Amino acid sequence: MTVRVAEPADAEAIGRLLHDFNTEFGDPSPGAAKLAARVRELLAADELTVLVADDGVAVMYFRPSLWSDALECYLAELYVVPARRGEGLGRALLDASVELARENGADYMCLATSETDVAARSLYESAGFSNRDDGSPMFFYEREL
Amino acid sequence: MTVRVAEPADAEAIGRLLHDFNTEFGDPSPGAAKLAARVRELLAADELTVLVADDGVAVMYFRPSLWSDALECYLAELYVVPARRGEGLGRALLDASVELARENGADYMCLATSETDVAARSLYESAGFSNRDDGSPMFFYEREL
Repeated sequence: MTVRVAEPADAEAIGRLLHDFNTEFGDPSPGAAKLAARVRELLAADELTVLVADDGVAVMYFRPSLWSDALECYLAELYVVPARRGEGLGRALLDASVELARENGADYMCLATSETDVAARSLYESAGFSNRDDGSPMFFYEREL
Repeated sequence: MTVRVAEPADAEAIGRLLHDFNTEFGDPSPGAAKLAARVRELLAADELTVLVADDGVAVMYFRPSLWSDALECYLAELYVVPARRGEGLGRALLDASVELARENGADYMCLATSETDVAARSLYESAGFSNRDDGSPMFFYEREL
């Protein structure tokens, strides 16, 4: 269960995983090949940080914090292929993401997930993430432009 | 009710607004002066996009999308001073944020807010933002590192 930081050469595998991710959850995907090309471009430009395991991937963005001189990390995607779930791969990717975010100088990390994705929520909560603000949940809003 | 893109010279006013924001909601703040210095630095480095009105502010981050060749926009902060609420200033800032995000090449925009902040949620929902994923709410999770 080796988790490592992806390089541009990993883009093809990452594109396939991200495509499978969106397909599984009924979200639109530009296709594995386009995703691979985009990931390769963004990895090369250092705009994206990706962790890969054999059958899983975590995608992180860093941005400078307003509230401190540190960075903030947004965990945009975390995916493990269905056949490999329940083996701790998601936890290994999440733990490695948190560790890498710290190493990169982040003092804060955030992510969004669906209320109904109980397995993901339980994973995040067990890793110290909270959706509570004064006892109430925080909602994540989005829209296309 | 003029909304305009902030320049580094606006940093002091922005720092004060962000400090008041966190103070009002019981969140920690490094203080108006430190915030102003950080905002000045990030505006000068083009790491941050801020819209200002007389008594309100919107803070946006842009990042390259994985799913398209466009950008994504994260609306990190939207604040109107208490005495000026109910006049449409929040809506003007939000509308201008959406417009600016589009102009800057974003095809997606997201934000987080508390379930109990009914006024903010109503504003976002009326502007086309949704917290629904297959009918269930999406939760926003965070942790310090």
